[in-house]
Amino acid sequence: MSATLGELALRHGLTLHGDPDVRVSRVATLQSAERDALSFLANPKYRKYLADTRAGAVVLDEDSAADCPVPALVSDNPYAAYARIATELYPEPRPPAGVHPDASVHPEADVHEGAYVGPRAVVEEGARLEAGSHVGPGCVVGRGAVVGKDSRLVANVTVCHGVVLGERVLLHPGAVIGADGFGIAREPDGWTKVPQVGSVRVGNDVEIGASTTVDRGAIDDTVIGARCMLAGMVGVVGHLEICDDVVVTGLSMVANSIREPGIYSGGLPTDEARKWRRNSARFRRLDELARRVNALESTLKKSNDGNGSHD
Amino acid sequence: MSATLGELALRHGLTLHGDPDVRVSRVATLQSAERDALSFLANPKYRKYLADTRAGAVVLDEDSAADCPVPALVSDNPYAAYARIATELYPEPRPPAGVHPDASVHPEADVHEGAYVGPRAVVEEGARLEAGSHVGPGCVVGRGAVVGKDSRLVANVTVCHGVVLGERVLLHPGAVIGADGFGIAREPDGWTKVPQVGSVRVGNDVEIGASTTVDRGAIDDTVIGARCMLAGMVGVVGHLEICDDVVVTGLSMVANSIREPGIYSGGLPTDEARKWRRNSARFRRLDELARRVNALESTLKKSNDGNGSHD
Amino acid sequence: MSATLGELALRHGLTLHGDPDVRVSRVATLQSAERDALSFLANPKYRKYLADTRAGAVVLDEDSAADCPVPALVSDNPYAAYARIATELYPEPRPPAGVHPDASVHPEADVHEGAYVGPRAVVEEGARLEAGSHVGPGCVVGRGAVVGKDSRLVANVTVCHGVVLGERVLLHPGAVIGADGFGIAREPDGWTKVPQVGSVRVGNDVEIGASTTVDRGAIDDTVIGARCMLAGMVGVVGHLEICDDVVVTGLSMVANSIREPGIYSGGLPTDEARKWRRNSARFRRLDELARRVNALESTLKKSNDGNGSHD
Repeated sequence: MSATLGELALRHGLTLHGDPDVRVSRVATLQSAERDALSFLANPKYRKYLADTRAGAVVLDEDSAADCPVPALVSDNPYAAYARIATELYPEPRPPAGVHPDASVHPEADVHEGAYVGPRAVVEEGARLEAGSHVGPGCVVGRGAVVGKDSRLVANVTVCHGVVLGERVLLHPGAVIGADGFGIAREPDGWTKVPQVGSVRVGNDVEIGASTTVDRGAIDDTVIGARCMLAGMVGVVGHLEICDDVVVTGLSMVANSIREPGIYSGGLPTDEARKWRRNSARFRRLDELARRVNALESTLKKSNDGNGSHD
Repeated sequence: MSATLGELALRHGLTLHGDPDVRVSRVATLQSAERDALSFLANPKYRKYLADTRAGAVVLDEDSAADCPVPALVSDNPYAAYARIATELYPEPRPPAGVHPDASVHPEADVHEGAYVGPRAVVEEGARLEAGSHVGPGCVVGRGAVVGKDSRLVANVTVCHGVVLGERVLLHPGAVIGADGFGIAREPDGWTKVPQVGSVRVGNDVEIGASTTVDRGAIDDTVIGARCMLAGMVGVVGHLEICDDVVVTGLSMVANSIREPGIYSGGLPTDEARKWRRNSARFRRLDELARRVNALESTLKKSNDGNGSHD
Repeated sequence: MSATLGELALRHGLTLHGDPDVRVSRVATLQSAERDALSFLANPKYRKYLADTRAGAVVLDEDSAADCPVPALVSDNPYAAYARIATELYPEPRPPAGVHPDASVHPEADVHEGAYVGPRAVVEEGARLEAGSHVGPGCVVGRGAVVGKDSRLVANVTVCHGVVLGERVLLHPGAVIGADGFGIAREPDGWTKVPQVGSVRVGNDVEIGASTTVDRGAIDDTVIGARCMLAGMVGVVGHLEICDDVVVTGLSMVANSIREPGIYSGGLPTDEARKWRRNSARFRRLDELARRVNALESTLKKSNDGNGSHD
């Protein structure tokens, strides 16, 4: 796909500085872009590359426009404008609706005529695929599960029995939605598995990354809500709530409910192994260290009070 | 499935306070249960919801029974009793034994006539599926692997060549059992892969969560033992042993053998990003901080000894 | 496969102490090896088992050879020599080239006649499988992706559209190469997905462990480079570089570029839960603790300066 800057400015409501007939057909970074590529500047960190860019055009904000050596598409939110243009330049090839002959669909599944089921995908009894939904190769949609309108399971995704996906949900390869979490009752003669009878409900417009697992609830459903972003390798324990508008950065364990919007972290950055070992050995005795600091403070306070009494 | 309280009391050895003819067909929390639902009280945290419950009956212990506003099923271990009743109310629909026409089974695999192989499952040469075993859609059972009696691979599970699963093993979607761990011998001109010739043996009644990986041994087998629970995102390095009756909480790295039963942890809970950043920056200099505390203690001791000498 | 010690010494350039006609057919640890097994000693930790070994032969270095009670194959790098011999003793059974009748290959995919495509594998439009490549059961090779010469996708691997794998790449089950990472532009009325138009390029001889995910780049490609080892549960955030010859130990988050070869760590080892809770509670106030140590140092310095003035 390609477009002229004039067309892009018009369609995306941007102010154009420069030749409206320049045509771009792909996106690239400021550093690597050639004349056929559109670039963008949203993070000030990359501003230093602007002066030397050879891009066909750059999407940026008013403040940076003056310094742009090539045509500029000006937006209050250059990253979002870039996203919309890139979506236009890179249309997802969509296979035509229908069930691939190598798919395995249970006769009592309800597959909308506008849905797509790819090769080696499995749709089990009672599952429902709504209009525009896309079940890619190797995906499994379990008994009674629902894939909402225009939702897409990319490949090798597992949606377990009874799970309900909203509209425009995007599940990347290897995601597993609705497996049992551990529910175990201990008894003197062993463990008894507690049936996990809740399900998972995923709201509209949710994107779930590769190989992510979302376990079903033990009794009530696991519900995936609004405008939260959980980065890679984030774990969330059961029986808690995360409010809307929360970001959790990578390698964090959410062990308690989060009731305030904001950014949360739990992952320590790596360090040279030698330094790390020393610090982590100290961590194992951090409580003791804190007690020793308490003791030092008491001693010093006493000694100062004593000194004071001499005055 | 549904049952009367009288039937449940009889079958599960519970004392019933209330009308034996009340019928329940599902389970629910104390807060959300209606008259057709059974609830339970095992965690004192939820006791506050007992007084207002509208459940058909509640499974609880003797101490709480007096305060139960609805029929009560009394047990010494209410959670286990609940688990058994829920198992009865929610029978797993089991497909009839047999090989689905869309499965791919090697002619030299040994599939018991009482086993089930689902659509798009693959069973390779020399694999053995015992009676009552269930290989769900998209699962792969590798060359020479064994799936023991009544074991279940839910969906998109990979059991690699030579792996042996015991009886009643439950593998959730995306689990990978028996892949190679990294074994690499460094040489001046590059790296040489060390063949991973051990396998994995999984004992009876083991449940393995979604997308869990259990690597094969380099020489001896990886063996999964008894009454241990590893929570989500727990990693265990090679060449170590974990004794029976160990629980490891979420996001922990087990880097050394665990020889005493008990609960072990390794994951830090998340915090607001701003606080987290400050604390984790301090962590990078924790060894230095500890040395400074040592120095303070020495200084203070010397100074106090000095002061003492004036007496 | 089996071999005599004489043959092994000759083929692998090793010095043999002992009977060249002894025949070994498998490998085992020093402790468990019987007369038909070859063992090795590379890690000094296991030297204590040498005196009592009943192995058919042991691969070890010159220093240990004198203490070996059984035939010895002497090498400067016993671990690498062991790796080469084990590779010989345990040849990977390779299915003959060809497309399994239960595979699903798009008519416009380019499958070399020397490639193997297993049951239930899917090869999409425009994908290319080079000579000697092996796409195992349940794998998906996306539109336009390339699997280089002699590369192997073990089982249930997903290689997304446009990804390029080099030669002799080994992908273990559940690996997902080329899924979208999160790219999201926030707007007042919601979030806009940023198309992830980069791809993934994996170099020659790269091995990627079970259920590992390698996301595609937002604009430029994600590139997997040379002689790095990332252990289990390592996460790497976007927009950074790791130089060659880096090892990152388990459960670490790489949040910044690594520009020096070496070993890096980020995972804390587990501890008893009770001790852990105390230490991790202190961690949440580590910044405050460090400030208190600063204050103690100031106070003590002032007080010592004061004391000094009395001299």
